[in-house]
Amino acid sequence: MTDQVRHGLEGVLVAESELSKLDGDAGELWYRGYPIAELADRATFEGTLYLLWNGSLPTQSELDSFVDKLSSHRRIDAAVTGTLERLAQRDEDPMAALRTGVSMLSAGDPERGLVPTDSETIRRTGRRLTAKLPTVLAAYDRFRRGEKPVEPSEELSHAENFLYMLTGTEPDDVAAETFDTALTLHADHGLNASTFTAMTVASTHADLYSAVTAGVGALSGPLHGGANQDVMETLLEVDNSDDGPVEWTRSALDDGRRIPGWGHRVYSVKDPRAEILEERSDALARSTGESKWCEYTREIEAHLTDERGLVEKGIAPNVDFYSGSVYYQLGIPVDLYTPIFAMSRVGGWVAHVDEYLTDNRLIRPRSRYVGLESRSLVPIDER
Amino acid sequence: MTDQVRHGLEGVLVAESELSKLDGDAGELWYRGYPIAELADRATFEGTLYLLWNGSLPTQSELDSFVDKLSSHRRIDAAVTGTLERLAQRDEDPMAALRTGVSMLSAGDPERGLVPTDSETIRRTGRRLTAKLPTVLAAYDRFRRGEKPVEPSEELSHAENFLYMLTGTEPDDVAAETFDTALTLHADHGLNASTFTAMTVASTHADLYSAVTAGVGALSGPLHGGANQDVMETLLEVDNSDDGPVEWTRSALDDGRRIPGWGHRVYSVKDPRAEILEERSDALARSTGESKWCEYTREIEAHLTDERGLVEKGIAPNVDFYSGSVYYQLGIPVDLYTPIFAMSRVGGWVAHVDEYLTDNRLIRPRSRYVGLESRSLVPIDER
Repeated sequence: MTDQVRHGLEGVLVAESELSKLDGDAGELWYRGYPIAELADRATFEGTLYLLWNGSLPTQSELDSFVDKLSSHRRIDAAVTGTLERLAQRDEDPMAALRTGVSMLSAGDPERGLVPTDSETIRRTGRRLTAKLPTVLAAYDRFRRGEKPVEPSEELSHAENFLYMLTGTEPDDVAAETFDTALTLHADHGLNASTFTAMTVASTHADLYSAVTAGVGALSGPLHGGANQDVMETLLEVDNSDDGPVEWTRSALDDGRRIPGWGHRVYSVKDPRAEILEERSDALARSTGESKWCEYTREIEAHLTDERGLVEKGIAPNVDFYSGSVYYQLGIPVDLYTPIFAMSRVGGWVAHVDEYLTDNRLIRPRSRYVGLESRSLVPIDER
Repeated sequence: MTDQVRHGLEGVLVAESELSKLDGDAGELWYRGYPIAELADRATFEGTLYLLWNGSLPTQSELDSFVDKLSSHRRIDAAVTGTLERLAQRDEDPMAALRTGVSMLSAGDPERGLVPTDSETIRRTGRRLTAKLPTVLAAYDRFRRGEKPVEPSEELSHAENFLYMLTGTEPDDVAAETFDTALTLHADHGLNASTFTAMTVASTHADLYSAVTAGVGALSGPLHGGANQDVMETLLEVDNSDDGPVEWTRSALDDGRRIPGWGHRVYSVKDPRAEILEERSDALARSTGESKWCEYTREIEAHLTDERGLVEKGIAPNVDFYSGSVYYQLGIPVDLYTPIFAMSRVGGWVAHVDEYLTDNRLIRPRSRYVGLESRSLVPIDER
């Protein structure tokens, strides 16, 4: 037992994992041994979920069966949509609405109450949750725009179906593939704060709804999942200013502002997911003819790298720095970026919970007591 | 950086804290330096909350002002009760209903969206949450019994008001004081799994609704808060059996069953809260004339201690072993015991979040990668 306080648990190893491997110095990321770039290029989000949950990439028939099961669970019941409608009337934050909606899904689970500590139950519940998150989110977004939810389609892929439920129109191939890639890139990332939260909750043998609801809550924090929205808000600010992106960045830094989307607890070089999203952002720009978002991002990156030397100092673009402009080009409202992150990361939460529970130990650290030593209570009229 | 995996984070110090001190070998517990028995005897739950949140026990006028503020926030809005009613129709588990209800409260917070990292905001939001949790829970219980919720009374104490909302009748003094003591005893307990979960969520700068919702989820696990219900179910089983409690225990152990309410990660002797609740259970028994629950508990304890030598092995009665029969004697439905725990522990969650955020560091441990090394993706039709 060490007596040192491990602030933020930085560097503390809390579990062994076969899921994702990160090399922060080389800027590399693998899921189950596969480089993230190969998965982004050649696997779908569903295939990646299968990989994370089962350990190997699926054969065609395994994938077909998995996709069928997943898509058959997309519908949510009227009690949940009713609550989402009420939350929309209160103009609730979409991430908070997702948290409430996800929590409420447990009531509709036919197997609720089952002690969820075996792999089969966890994955089955995980499929239901993963299938329904996009439906909750899209329904909420429709309600707040004064529109009725679009019923999910079982015929579309996970990525396509979400964009379809959001807009009522099936997305084109570039949009669908780009969004599928973004989901793939965000599906897992070691023991980040939300994944670790989900594991901690599950380590009490609470159900997966509790674990995933807690994960959504953790991801809502601006120091974790919230940063992708901040990046897009920054780009919109650049666009609205009279300055170019470099000038804007210069004066923002002079004002003591932080540029969001830079720096990561693990990566000291450019996040490999940012590399991939940069390519996708560029491809989207070429497909739509609107290149300014990608250009702003690149110019800010060049300035911070070349003029400010941030990358030399180990502060480099992270995944959020490019995801914002990708989602913007897909026409997704800015405040849905973090909920979309949850839609993807739920795959990692389920995988880590499943893995941790195979050799569970209640997660319960300690604090060092630094308060007053024993004192006696003075009656209230003598205080 | 240590290379050892700290399974369950056992013994890992994650923060400094001035809140509660536990001596697991002596079986002692202090809040802010005050022995728990003194607080149980001579402070109210509201006074204890004030102590935890502010560092000192209140003067009479400080307490009056605190009680007024707290009781003024008891009402919940119609959107939340509407959702609770729908959950009751689905016969949702009360702890899951509480999780959803608490999550939904954020939509009604007039200050929602405020970055909640300063002490003032955290405590103000903490007051709102603490005030409303009992209302959510009592409303849910009324709905599932086919009754309308009872509006909270601002005139009653936190403990009295909950029992009043549950039954529609003001409790007698013995019941009110016993329940107040139970709330006091459960308010804080170092970095247990739910408190640590709330801190982890808050360390991302997520709002307090996310942190407390996650805490409720963690507490729902049978390895954490769920055990008090298990104890009462055991006692009911004893009561329904033809055997006496000792005989019943003997055959349960022979069947390889674990007796719930025994053993604790921190205490190797009898939990000091169990000592206090044992007295209260006895007092309740004398007040009601129904002594069997207290007797069963004591006989099982004597058997496990004297015949089985559990206490010698460091496995002793924990707080859950006596709280179950106390709540039962107060007429509280068995499946509300864990939600009641949350009603109290929310005080500790808020206190620890507040304390941790004064010197925040995102909680993000690591895992040791033990999976496959880099491999190349085989096209799906060649798998």
